[in-house]
Amino acid sequence: KFLKRRAVGVVPAAFSGGQPKRGVETGPGHLIEFGLLEQLQSEDLGYEVTLDESFPPCDSLRPASDPLVGRLRNARWVSSVSQRVFSSVRDTCAKGAFALTIGGDHSVGMGTVAGSASVYGDLRVVWVDAHADINTPETTISGNLHGCPVSFLLGLGGTTNVAHFEWLRPCLTPDRIVYIGLRDLDPGEKKIIRSLGIKAFSMHEVDKWGIGRVMEMALDHIAPKRDKPIHLSFDVDALDPTVIPATGTPVRGGLTFREGHYICEALHETGLLVAMDLMEVNPLIGDQGGLLQTVSIGCGLVRSALGETLL
Amino acid sequence: KFLKRRAVGVVPAAFSGGQPKRGVETGPGHLIEFGLLEQLQSEDLGYEVTLDESFPPCDSLRPASDPLVGRLRNARWVSSVSQRVFSSVRDTCAKGAFALTIGGDHSVGMGTVAGSASVYGDLRVVWVDAHADINTPETTISGNLHGCPVSFLLGLGGTTNVAHFEWLRPCLTPDRIVYIGLRDLDPGEKKIIRSLGIKAFSMHEVDKWGIGRVMEMALDHIAPKRDKPIHLSFDVDALDPTVIPATGTPVRGGLTFREGHYICEALHETGLLVAMDLMEVNPLIGDQGGLLQTVSIGCGLVRSALGETLL
Amino acid sequence: KFLKRRAVGVVPAAFSGGQPKRGVETGPGHLIEFGLLEQLQSEDLGYEVTLDESFPPCDSLRPASDPLVGRLRNARWVSSVSQRVFSSVRDTCAKGAFALTIGGDHSVGMGTVAGSASVYGDLRVVWVDAHADINTPETTISGNLHGCPVSFLLGLGGTTNVAHFEWLRPCLTPDRIVYIGLRDLDPGEKKIIRSLGIKAFSMHEVDKWGIGRVMEMALDHIAPKRDKPIHLSFDVDALDPTVIPATGTPVRGGLTFREGHYICEALHETGLLVAMDLMEVNPLIGDQGGLLQTVSIGCGLVRSALGETLL
Ligand SMILES: [Mn+2]
Ligand SMILES: [Mn+2]
Ligand SMILES: [Mn+2]
Ligand SMILES: [Mn+2]
Ligand SMILES: [Mn+2]
Ligand SMILES: [Mn+2]
Repeated sequence: KFLKRRAVGVVPAAFSGGQPKRGVETGPGHLIEFGLLEQLQSEDLGYEVTLDESFPPCDSLRPASDPLVGRLRNARWVSSVSQRVFSSVRDTCAKGAFALTIGGDHSVGMGTVAGSASVYGDLRVVWVDAHADINTPETTISGNLHGCPVSFLLGLGGTTNVAHFEWLRPCLTPDRIVYIGLRDLDPGEKKIIRSLGIKAFSMHEVDKWGIGRVMEMALDHIAPKRDKPIHLSFDVDALDPTVIPATGTPVRGGLTFREGHYICEALHETGLLVAMDLMEVNPLIGDQGGLLQTVSIGCGLVRSALGETLL
Repeated sequence: KFLKRRAVGVVPAAFSGGQPKRGVETGPGHLIEFGLLEQLQSEDLGYEVTLDESFPPCDSLRPASDPLVGRLRNARWVSSVSQRVFSSVRDTCAKGAFALTIGGDHSVGMGTVAGSASVYGDLRVVWVDAHADINTPETTISGNLHGCPVSFLLGLGGTTNVAHFEWLRPCLTPDRIVYIGLRDLDPGEKKIIRSLGIKAFSMHEVDKWGIGRVMEMALDHIAPKRDKPIHLSFDVDALDPTVIPATGTPVRGGLTFREGHYICEALHETGLLVAMDLMEVNPLIGDQGGLLQTVSIGCGLVRSALGETLL
Repeated sequence: KFLKRRAVGVVPAAFSGGQPKRGVETGPGHLIEFGLLEQLQSEDLGYEVTLDESFPPCDSLRPASDPLVGRLRNARWVSSVSQRVFSSVRDTCAKGAFALTIGGDHSVGMGTVAGSASVYGDLRVVWVDAHADINTPETTISGNLHGCPVSFLLGLGGTTNVAHFEWLRPCLTPDRIVYIGLRDLDPGEKKIIRSLGIKAFSMHEVDKWGIGRVMEMALDHIAPKRDKPIHLSFDVDALDPTVIPATGTPVRGGLTFREGHYICEALHETGLLVAMDLMEVNPLIGDQGGLLQTVSIGCGLVRSALGETLL
């Protein structure tokens, strides 16, 4: 309903600076090598696919010096990469194409959502993740920015005054985001979510209602008339570690293979999806079989979000 | 409600000609060796069990020459074995006993359903499978007939004129079959199912509604008054490969152990089941542990369909 | 609503005499060593925790001679240990604290429930287990008393006249207990449950309705106004063996990790829980990884029942 062309612009967000484990910056390469782009171009799906080939290697944007900003680590690096992602997503959306970001750590989620929101003013967000990624500069314990993008998008707790992030202005309100799959939150994050009344379906709610009703309720919350553009930010660690082993912060008790695909299918069915992030594929975690499985399932999730169906 | 005796007639459909992988013809032997027949005769279930011991070894019915018929492979062989299965199932049903076919590849499903339909004119079919097995001589790419039995039963796309299959007349209509577990269909199969309006519960629908409501909806479709005879054709690849590893065409994202049994239990509860096929157990796929698990669970599915309950 | 203090009294029921496999008597030690007590005392949960350190080693209460009583094995031993558990649970409940029993085999379930029932007269019980543990001295085949505690609590089939159990009087009625997770019952047990009309959610019902509705229906049965004290007796073998490998009588097709936690969370949410048993952790079954997983998940179940939430 919002896209103007059957086209996908892909940002390979080859970045690991939002968290401490190397490897995640090679996630995009593995997804592409596995054939993601060809799959989207295939007869079945038929998208025109454009890869942002100018996206720089992970380390080339890294500043020589990047001192802590409060507790935040790699703030300059995260900011400049996220801004780069922001521009690419914004340009893709402006052309009426679907913006697909593949990662890479989730810190650049501040860039992806800001990018699509800059084109679609009334954007809604579905954040699928084991984690809420809503720590603020004040609540974060680790200082890893991949745990903070949502607070930057909402403009919470001092995020609007963090050095180096002047380019990023709040573009989301608490009623326009919904979480699915949460199961590992810091106490400070729980407080933020409760106090802002953010709609969140943790694994408890997924078990309580089943994924079918959860998706209905999620959509009823962010787009009751099914008429708003939706950005899906999918952290692969939302799925169970037995399904997705190659990721940096796995948490037991996650979504099943089937539930992960169901989420993507249900969002596609709305006709409202304008962008998707598939983040946190880390090829250095686990063994070769686990990597192949992770990459293969990752591609499947993207295909589902872009219209592949079982029937 | 339809059976006249607490008796089961078993056809050991030791056949592999409907697909290219050897091994599946030994599935029936493994199920029997594991104790399937004794389990049905046990105090708990108490069936009189008759094995069709005259069923010939897989290769004895193989014609010396079996040239392609269009794209179809082993057409003469599949036809003669299926006709043999047809007779056995028909005779069992005619005696008022439950017809249990154990396989062996699913191509003989044209024989099993034709057999029970020849006795129960108003038969309904529940086809549990990762695949729709509804390719026609015109749509099949592989030419493997285990992907085609449903189209033969419905009389689709030239099936009524295929050489060697003159004995088989369409005995099913699109409104009298329901699929459960689908997740790997050819584009041509999707078109057929859509255009004929065949009721199908893919894994997407199983996730959307849960297996409890799916079974209710499936039964409401084929037997809204719960008064029609039902044939269950169960391809073990409907279950997830982690549950059933020893099968020839496994597909990720399948039914769980619990859902598989639930389907069988729910069908038994209707009192309408008159026949069951348990197909595609291939002992040569995977390791010894996986085979034992597959055979053990296969037997459990049959017992559930024949009345074993947890409570 | 019933507890008077944010306190937990822990009974380490280090006992294996209700069944034949050694090892289960060391379950409590492993749970404690893993940090269970500290977890309950942590900032997050903040309970005052008291361990019943006077609980004797498994073998010290074992009588020199313990001949069969009918078919029952170790009757004197089971009785004296259960009575010891009974006293400890009763004393904890009398002080207004939460009574947590960790095991150890489930035979002492007669002591735990009798203990809490002696303080809370109108007690309700949720028995989460693959087994019904409702064999009587007349129906038991194995003679293992861990398969009998519920019949003793209900006063069924001669239990009131078994030598050595004079201290134990029936304290439960069939309408005040509900089962969840059943899937391996003896024929005699099925008859008892049916004839007494005991509400039971086997895995079939969990699949039919989903765990969310099952918990609602279970609570509607035992506490429709949500105003009765509840004792949760959780046998870890209710969970699937892939989740909980280190237990003595594993049964395929069990509750998932998520469903197990959901049950505990839903019970905590009622505010009615006054006691919990976590039983049948057997460190000698399976390998080291399986033990760690079992103990870790066991602790998680207790934390969930005591208020840990995902959000
Ligand atoms: Mn995450
Ligand atoms: Mn994330
Ligand atoms: Mn199949
Ligand atoms: Mn099949
Ligand atoms: Mn048990
Ligand atoms: Mn038990």
